Amino acid sequence: MKRREFIGKVGLGLAAAGALAPSMAFAKENKVNWKVVTSWPPKMPCLQEGTERIAKNIGIMTDGKWKMQVFAGGELVGPLDVFDAVSQGRAVHGATTGMYYFAGKMPEAQLFAACPYPFGMFHRELAAWMYQGGGLELYHEMLKPFNMVAFPMASTGTQMGGWFRKEIHSLADLKGLKMRIPGLGGKIMAKLGVNVVNLPGSEIYTALERGVLDATEWAIPLYDIRAGLFQAAKYYYAPGFQEPTTFVDFIVNIKAWEALPEGYQLLFKTACSDSLNWTIARSDVANGPILEDLAANKGVKLRQYPDDVLKALKAVSAEVMEEECNKHANLKKVFQIQQKFISQIRPWLKASEWALIKALDL
Amino acid sequence: MKRREFIGKVGLGLAAAGALAPSMAFAKENKVNWKVVTSWPPKMPCLQEGTERIAKNIGIMTDGKWKMQVFAGGELVGPLDVFDAVSQGRAVHGATTGMYYFAGKMPEAQLFAACPYPFGMFHRELAAWMYQGGGLELYHEMLKPFNMVAFPMASTGTQMGGWFRKEIHSLADLKGLKMRIPGLGGKIMAKLGVNVVNLPGSEIYTALERGVLDATEWAIPLYDIRAGLFQAAKYYYAPGFQEPTTFVDFIVNIKAWEALPEGYQLLFKTACSDSLNWTIARSDVANGPILEDLAANKGVKLRQYPDDVLKALKAVSAEVMEEECNKHANLKKVFQIQQKFISQIRPWLKASEWALIKALDL
Repeated sequence: MKRREFIGKVGLGLAAAGALAPSMAFAKENKVNWKVVTSWPPKMPCLQEGTERIAKNIGIMTDGKWKMQVFAGGELVGPLDVFDAVSQGRAVHGATTGMYYFAGKMPEAQLFAACPYPFGMFHRELAAWMYQGGGLELYHEMLKPFNMVAFPMASTGTQMGGWFRKEIHSLADLKGLKMRIPGLGGKIMAKLGVNVVNLPGSEIYTALERGVLDATEWAIPLYDIRAGLFQAAKYYYAPGFQEPTTFVDFIVNIKAWEALPEGYQLLFKTACSDSLNWTIARSDVANGPILEDLAANKGVKLRQYPDDVLKALKAVSAEVMEEECNKHANLKKVFQIQQKFISQIRPWLKASEWALIKALDL
Repeated sequence: MKRREFIGKVGLGLAAAGALAPSMAFAKENKVNWKVVTSWPPKMPCLQEGTERIAKNIGIMTDGKWKMQVFAGGELVGPLDVFDAVSQGRAVHGATTGMYYFAGKMPEAQLFAACPYPFGMFHRELAAWMYQGGGLELYHEMLKPFNMVAFPMASTGTQMGGWFRKEIHSLADLKGLKMRIPGLGGKIMAKLGVNVVNLPGSEIYTALERGVLDATEWAIPLYDIRAGLFQAAKYYYAPGFQEPTTFVDFIVNIKAWEALPEGYQLLFKTACSDSLNWTIARSDVANGPILEDLAANKGVKLRQYPDDVLKALKAVSAEVMEEECNKHANLKKVFQIQQKFISQIRPWLKASEWALIKALDL
């Protein structure tokens, strides 16, 4: 799921939101009313659903005292204006979004959402880092200048590589390929000779269908099937090196956060953590049957990137991250802390779960 | 972590608990007082800690209205009497425990805790099944005759294989080996010629040190280091085929559950789900450095079971599960449902996360 899906829908953005009266001093007898915006279309599985589920659950758990009104992307604030809206505390108290959309404002935010090098962190690694490895504390330190806190509320697991019109047999087939792939993934692909194209989300389908694009990165089967890209490109590649897992966050304005009673803060954190389990369970259960349906009934050919491509991606990922570190001091700090953490956690995963998977070729 | 660790400590058991006055009708103005027992020693990482953390968090989130007193194994009820105590609603409202300890009462309970065949479910698979694949509903159906509900509150990830006095070079080295390994893992090991020994937990260390035992299964580095077995056996084998992940549950007497207001039920479920994240993050962060310390400073030799052993374990696991299914109708029902679920979810994990791990040998 990338920012360009929503470009066409931004429309009113903060102008409309600004017309609402801000109301940050809301903690009266523990009655709280929040306006929450998202970067997602209505009914978006896991993400919009998950935000609405958190709002509903918090309502039930507080006996109706904490009300959260949830607005899909563009309903109150443009999908990509949610960062500014929350940061400035203008009419909205919180939002759910993919923080790598805001790499321009906060380059290090990318690494709290998805770390493409060296192929991790994976879901369990990123969760361990966030919850018990100091990740969340570091994140909040980095978020201070933006007046917000953030808590992971959804995880995708390792995403798909993307949709291709032609089969990729080796590294050579990537050269000159016109592919839409934003962010760090795009910078990595460009190093392999891919012609990385930026296109608004609304134009991708047509461009792919007409051959203006040869390929596009997207997300996971549960999200991808909504986008209908299988009708325009028949090769569906895995795995998504660019997002070994992606965390979507619930960001909250710092004043709104600090105005909450301690019990409500803990309730919110607990509800977001539960949402992480709910969202990954929801997509893990759905993705397998969707892959099967795509292959059996929709003419989609499921493919895995050739090993030489994956190995080359690993090598150039290192170069890209070095370049990014040289450009952005905070990103460098986060990257180095993450790399140290990976070197501590991975020997355990390699010895245990991954050893079974590899030895038995599960 | 196996039941025999606690045998020496059971002592008073239900006799003492029975002396307390039962109090199931507690929902007055949402004030709730629960007595919660566990199967764990005091300060046990993740499990006792996690139970106390849930109690503390629920207290904070309800503004002190829901009080949970937590008793370690043996303090109020014997570690292995918690199932009966909760089932009968005698003085206690809930407990945290490994449900495979009670295979004698409820054979199918083993499969909700850990599924050793065909090497899964792993953490993400079991979580997906429980939360979104119908697992929890099936579990509650099976728990009805025992008057309880259960919610996962801790996960270990794939455990270690165990502690051995001698190196295992091949399948032949297992024959005649005296190993303490309970449950399904023991039945599987026995098929490979291992002489499976039952010993009270209190006797394991001495038996291993003296060579009465050649090997013993235990849990994960964070738990194992407390047991000090590295002083008696120097080869620490991975991976633990017998527990690809293990879920520990919070079991609750059905009357205590039904007396809770809806908001409190949801709060409890949410707190348990958060605890699943907290516990696996806690041990995932700790296990790697402990493995390193064991190898660097404590003379422990870390080893992986040879491939022929793992392949043989996979094959005989199938035989054991067939035999168990023929003996227990409910276990058979759960097993078949789980196998179908695995066949739906695994193609997704194979295409995504596992593909990266395997192709790049991470």
